[in-house]
Amino acid sequence: MTKTMSGIAASNGIAIAKAFRLENPVLNVDKRTVSDIDSELERMTSALEKSIAELEVIQKKTAETISDKEAAIFGAHLLVLSDPELVGPITERITTDQVNAEFALQETTDMFISMFEAMDNDYMKERAADIRDVRKRVLAHLLGVTIQSPSMISDEVIIIAEDLTPSDTVQLNAQFVKGFITDIGGRTSHSAILARTLEIPAVVGAKTAMADIQNGMTVIVDGLGGTILIDPEDSVIEEYQNKQAAYDEQKTEWAKMKNEATVSADGQAVEIGANIGTPKDIAGVLDNGGEAIGLYRTEFLYMGRDQFPTEDEQVEAYASVLKGMEGKPTVVRTLDIGGDKELSYLDLPKELNPFLGLRAIRLCLEMPDMFRTQLRALLRASVHGNLKIMFPMIATLDEFREAKALLLEEKAKLQAEGIAVSDSIEVGIMVEIPSTAVMADTFAKEVDFFSIGTNDLIQYTMAADRMNESVSYLYQPFNPAILRLVKMVIDASQREGKWTGMCGEMAGDEIAIPILLGLGLDEFSMSASSILKARSQISKLSKAEMAQHTDRILALSTSQEVEEYVTKLSNN
Amino acid sequence: MTKTMSGIAASNGIAIAKAFRLENPVLNVDKRTVSDIDSELERMTSALEKSIAELEVIQKKTAETISDKEAAIFGAHLLVLSDPELVGPITERITTDQVNAEFALQETTDMFISMFEAMDNDYMKERAADIRDVRKRVLAHLLGVTIQSPSMISDEVIIIAEDLTPSDTVQLNAQFVKGFITDIGGRTSHSAILARTLEIPAVVGAKTAMADIQNGMTVIVDGLGGTILIDPEDSVIEEYQNKQAAYDEQKTEWAKMKNEATVSADGQAVEIGANIGTPKDIAGVLDNGGEAIGLYRTEFLYMGRDQFPTEDEQVEAYASVLKGMEGKPTVVRTLDIGGDKELSYLDLPKELNPFLGLRAIRLCLEMPDMFRTQLRALLRASVHGNLKIMFPMIATLDEFREAKALLLEEKAKLQAEGIAVSDSIEVGIMVEIPSTAVMADTFAKEVDFFSIGTNDLIQYTMAADRMNESVSYLYQPFNPAILRLVKMVIDASQREGKWTGMCGEMAGDEIAIPILLGLGLDEFSMSASSILKARSQISKLSKAEMAQHTDRILALSTSQEVEEYVTKLSNN
Repeated sequence: MTKTMSGIAASNGIAIAKAFRLENPVLNVDKRTVSDIDSELERMTSALEKSIAELEVIQKKTAETISDKEAAIFGAHLLVLSDPELVGPITERITTDQVNAEFALQETTDMFISMFEAMDNDYMKERAADIRDVRKRVLAHLLGVTIQSPSMISDEVIIIAEDLTPSDTVQLNAQFVKGFITDIGGRTSHSAILARTLEIPAVVGAKTAMADIQNGMTVIVDGLGGTILIDPEDSVIEEYQNKQAAYDEQKTEWAKMKNEATVSADGQAVEIGANIGTPKDIAGVLDNGGEAIGLYRTEFLYMGRDQFPTEDEQVEAYASVLKGMEGKPTVVRTLDIGGDKELSYLDLPKELNPFLGLRAIRLCLEMPDMFRTQLRALLRASVHGNLKIMFPMIATLDEFREAKALLLEEKAKLQAEGIAVSDSIEVGIMVEIPSTAVMADTFAKEVDFFSIGTNDLIQYTMAADRMNESVSYLYQPFNPAILRLVKMVIDASQREGKWTGMCGEMAGDEIAIPILLGLGLDEFSMSASSILKARSQISKLSKAEMAQHTDRILALSTSQEVEEYVTKLSNN
Repeated sequence: MTKTMSGIAASNGIAIAKAFRLENPVLNVDKRTVSDIDSELERMTSALEKSIAELEVIQKKTAETISDKEAAIFGAHLLVLSDPELVGPITERITTDQVNAEFALQETTDMFISMFEAMDNDYMKERAADIRDVRKRVLAHLLGVTIQSPSMISDEVIIIAEDLTPSDTVQLNAQFVKGFITDIGGRTSHSAILARTLEIPAVVGAKTAMADIQNGMTVIVDGLGGTILIDPEDSVIEEYQNKQAAYDEQKTEWAKMKNEATVSADGQAVEIGANIGTPKDIAGVLDNGGEAIGLYRTEFLYMGRDQFPTEDEQVEAYASVLKGMEGKPTVVRTLDIGGDKELSYLDLPKELNPFLGLRAIRLCLEMPDMFRTQLRALLRASVHGNLKIMFPMIATLDEFREAKALLLEEKAKLQAEGIAVSDSIEVGIMVEIPSTAVMADTFAKEVDFFSIGTNDLIQYTMAADRMNESVSYLYQPFNPAILRLVKMVIDASQREGKWTGMCGEMAGDEIAIPILLGLGLDEFSMSASSILKARSQISKLSKAEMAQHTDRILALSTSQEVEEYVTKLSNN
């Protein structure tokens, strides 16, 4: 009989396939005295070589199917395996202590791991995690245990796992991995986000999937509803095949809209852009019919390395995005680190409340040399496309003026050096701090555009950390206070002939879209995979009709009342 | 020649007196072998007895001159000295190891201190601090070193110290301590706050006072301007005596207003209340002509103890405040802990951003039993005066409704038990979260009053931790965004016939007062010592005239522009 489980819907779509359990291998290490030292050293060398060969394959596959950024994890692993400071002591220990290779490996790496973990430095802690990962791989070769690698899967399966590590997720190949189910994790975990990028249906937080699902069982993953069906009866399979077909049909309908403009039922055009993290994401944006980049998060360029990117490296990245977008509007956000985002090579003081601390533009104005380098790179890249520069976490007009002054200074310097700079770069700000929303009328006189960052705007307006479970009930995108602030920003921009976009998660939300359309939002920026669905939804909505509802919606008292109102509207 | 230094003005007023250096004693402990055990035990006993006698005197003095709460510190110290678990091992060690009393004391207490300090628990860490304090006192008696105790000062002096510990500050007697200067500390340090309560002129953060000022030197402390003058020439002394006289005259003028109502120059009445922490503060409120308690912070009732206060203990405290206020309005804020305020006996999970976490009403709704006890106590005390109950950190209407429902349930239960409860208790909320200010119109339909908590409202609206130096430039009370939110709240309350107060630091600020009067604020609540000055200022302002300026002020772009505008107004 069909067994049903439920979890958190993490990535849309329905998949039906055999289960493939991704197990954590058992790797027990005993200490043995060895007499034949040479053959023990040879075992060690052989295990290292096999691990290196394996990692090189995985690294290459990852770079091809996902991105260079994700592949870099395995570059770090390869560095560990060729580090004489690690390999030397292992060999030494086998020879001197006459112990088996497994034990020598374990003891030596234990020392490094505990040394790195003891350091109060996230970069070093990551190194400890790398060593742990690599050790697992080498030990498996020594012990003759197979480590399952998702990249080696060559049948159509649904992966069942306790959790997927970053190194597991980067190896998911959508050709064979039709879906996945994990026992832990939430909608915003790394694996869930990647599932949406790869468009693999997924349910996370299923709690007992590893306990209840065996290899080879037929499993249905309903990533739309968060449902899992184990060993389904034929009638159930048929039902879900129909759902799958309906979903595919909808996707086909959406796909037809790929080259169309985004226009409401009453003929009003808006723009749908995408949020991206690296130049590699451009392909997905264009495939999904993105009309713009509404948010290019430049901090990824600064992460996963051991020093700041040079001006030239930055020019290359920005130019590649601008060229890729072929003249379409491209909003680049300047560096947004601090808070929960750290750089291993930048030692920032610990803060009691990092979300209320020295982050984003605050940090950039505090470190003008670093900031000027980014601004120069953006200006130099500007001739390759339609660049718009956006400053994050602006709380006061003074901050905006200071940041813009730095930009203009660098522009003048470049021009004096005879370097070409576009003359039509728009300069705008993120609206993610309540003060800025409230003061939008004064900002609108000086900025070229606004982009509302709802994730932060909600957490500050409600004074509730969006990562803190205990107060998650206060993370209310539909609280009328949020909608009123959004209206203040849009109204202010309209009065000054400027435009307003939104690049938080809310911009792609089914319930938010009718309200935002009615409020007059000009640009919706979301993950690429949501664009076509949103375009389809907007094509069925009348902007004028939605505008008539907004006053009533903004006069409601609670988040729940707003959701009910809009849901009722949509069902009529 | 007069030497001038400057520091942070911490408490108003001017003092001229001889310097009294409060030094940290040198207490070196050597290990010696003793042959006469009995006489060594006697030395120990004698030092303990002297310490106990001394502490009893200090405790009594503190209770008389300051408050029972402050005196409790010495109660804790006395408990340490009579604890057999501590005294036993010391005696044991002297006898068995044949060592001197100092060494036995040092070794034994070291063990307890490091044990308590290692615990991840603030209550235990405080116990370690208590043992450290007490040890210093006993060691001083054993070594024949005198510890200077501020409570023993019987000449008029100005204290010079590196810093004042809590146990130093509670011993300050305003009769002899005319002022103090510390090298470290800020305007909101414990000693600065107490200086304002005791009305002792003080300058803190002077950096080199201990290096530059010797005992007996004549010193002038100008707590109005943050200036320190050492060894002043006669002409300088005269100049400051004149300033002192002018300040005293002003204080006399203010004192005349003690029994007057607060009325603007154009005849509009407002109310000035005080913020208090314990029932003992009532005397100061009435002495300074307070018309109300605008904020009674009940959390002090929960602090400095090892379990929750019982319902009866709470009734006693609340009734004593209500009776003391003789029918004047008394706003009691329900428990506001979490964030930076912890209770030793309540183990709350560590949060990444405690200011955005589970605090105040959020925690109370999470722990309804604890909350109901406080509500019952308030209801039972309500018959003794003019009680108004206020919920802190309300972010949504649902939270207010839930809290009020619990209050009404407890009221019904008490009435069913035949216990008298006042029928005219107003129920209001703190407005300190941006969402609540923005939604004030919907709240105004359900609450009886608002009280704006500017300290938190500013930090959330600007997304800047008010304790974090790196972003202190963003703590802008005069940012027009803050003033616009204040206006939204006042306007909303007026439309529904409710009233709005303010209990943050801003309510007593010279620049804020004209703006708040113009916006129509009904109640200003501040530290008792600021009341008369504020009343005097308001008596010279025309509310109608100020109201004409508010639109212009709210249309300004930056905090600086607002401050300049108001300063110019005041100088005209």
